[in-house]
Amino acid sequence: METDVLAENRHLADHNRYTLRGAGVRSVDVMGTTGAGKTALIIKLSKIIMERGLRVGVIAGDVTGQDDYDRFQEAGVKAFNLNTGKECHLDANLVDKALDSIDLLDLDFLFVENVGNLVCPADFPLGTDSRLVVISVTEGDDMVRKHPMIFQDADIAVFNKMDLAEYMGVDVERVKDDYRKLTGGKDLMPTSVRTGDGIRELVGRLLD
Amino acid sequence: METDVLAENRHLADHNRYTLRGAGVRSVDVMGTTGAGKTALIIKLSKIIMERGLRVGVIAGDVTGQDDYDRFQEAGVKAFNLNTGKECHLDANLVDKALDSIDLLDLDFLFVENVGNLVCPADFPLGTDSRLVVISVTEGDDMVRKHPMIFQDADIAVFNKMDLAEYMGVDVERVKDDYRKLTGGKDLMPTSVRTGDGIRELVGRLLD
Repeated sequence: METDVLAENRHLADHNRYTLRGAGVRSVDVMGTTGAGKTALIIKLSKIIMERGLRVGVIAGDVTGQDDYDRFQEAGVKAFNLNTGKECHLDANLVDKALDSIDLLDLDFLFVENVGNLVCPADFPLGTDSRLVVISVTEGDDMVRKHPMIFQDADIAVFNKMDLAEYMGVDVERVKDDYRKLTGGKDLMPTSVRTGDGIRELVGRLLD
Repeated sequence: METDVLAENRHLADHNRYTLRGAGVRSVDVMGTTGAGKTALIIKLSKIIMERGLRVGVIAGDVTGQDDYDRFQEAGVKAFNLNTGKECHLDANLVDKALDSIDLLDLDFLFVENVGNLVCPADFPLGTDSRLVVISVTEGDDMVRKHPMIFQDADIAVFNKMDLAEYMGVDVERVKDDYRKLTGGKDLMPTSVRTGDGIRELVGRLLD
C-alpha cells in the first residue's frame, strides 16, 4: 500500500516535471521545518531573481490558511495558495492541480514552498528540477543527524539565520561536517536573510 | 482505514493512561516543531521537578538516532530512547512498548518528547495526563493560525525563547491573541530557558 502511494506520487511528479519543463519554467521544492525561514528566504531570492529580469512565482504550501501567501503578495511576489487540509507535506497530485490553475507561460521560475516539516516531505518528490532543504541555527546543531533522509533527498541544503549562530551557541562546523559525511562531500550553504550573506551564492546555484 | 488507525491508537492510549496512573506516574506529551527548544525545556523543567524531590524520566522520541537521549543523560535526567524509524510522530503503540521496558515504580513524573513536528502528532494521543505544545519566537508569529489542530488538542501551550522576541521582531501579542481566540480564552505561557522566565510557572502548571 505504501509502495503504491509512493509509486503513484513519482508518476505524477514526472508528469509535473514535463509540464514545467515544457513551459520553460525552472522550479525548486523548498523544504524545511516550521520557522526555518523558508518564506523570508524565498522572498529574498525572488526579488534578486526578478531583478535579473526573470518572472517568478511561488506556490505557498501550508496545512491551512494563507499567511505565507499574504506575505508573498505583500512583498510583490506572485503567489498561489495551496492547502493540504491535514497532510504534513505537499504531494505531486496537489502540485499537479495547482499547476492547472497557473499560467506557466507567465513564469520563468517557480518556488514551491512545502509544508513546514523535516520528516514527511522527504518521500514525496513534486517534480521540481531540484529540491532544497532549509535549516536554521535556531534549530540547534543536530538537525542533519536527526533527519538524514531529507538531506539525502535534497539537492541543496541551506543553513539559515547565520546572524544568530553565535548567540545560539551553535557549532556550525559540526553541522557542516555531518552534512559532508552524509552526502559524500557536499557543502551546506550558509545564509542570512537579515544580513544578505550567502544569498547571491544561492541564487547562482538555483539559476545554474 | 484512517478511522481504524486513530481508534486503535485511542484504545492503546487509554491502556497507557491506566498503566501510568496505576504506577502513580504523572506524565506529559511534549510536542512542537524541530528547534522549538523541547529538549532544553524538558531538561530545565526536570531539574526543578527533581529539586522538589520527585523522580523524573524522559522518553526521547525521534525519527532516528539518540542525540536527545544523549543530551538528557548528560544533563543527569534519566532517559529512554524511542525511534519511530520513518514516522513523523510517536503513537500510543510505540509508547506502550517503551513503557514495558521502563521501571515505572522508579518514577514520579514522565516527559514524553514527541518527534519535532507541528502537524502529525495532533491526531495521536499517547495516553499521558496532559499534552503540551511548544512554539518559539524564532518560528515567527503565525504558528497558531497555521496549525490550529495541535493547539486545540494541547492542554498547555508554551511560547519559548522569549529572550529572542525583540531581535526576531515577533509580535508576541498577536500570537497570544490568536491562541486566546482559538481556545476560547486560554493563555499562552511565555518561557525562556536561557533567562529562566516563566519556567517555575510552567512547573507549577505541570504539577498542579
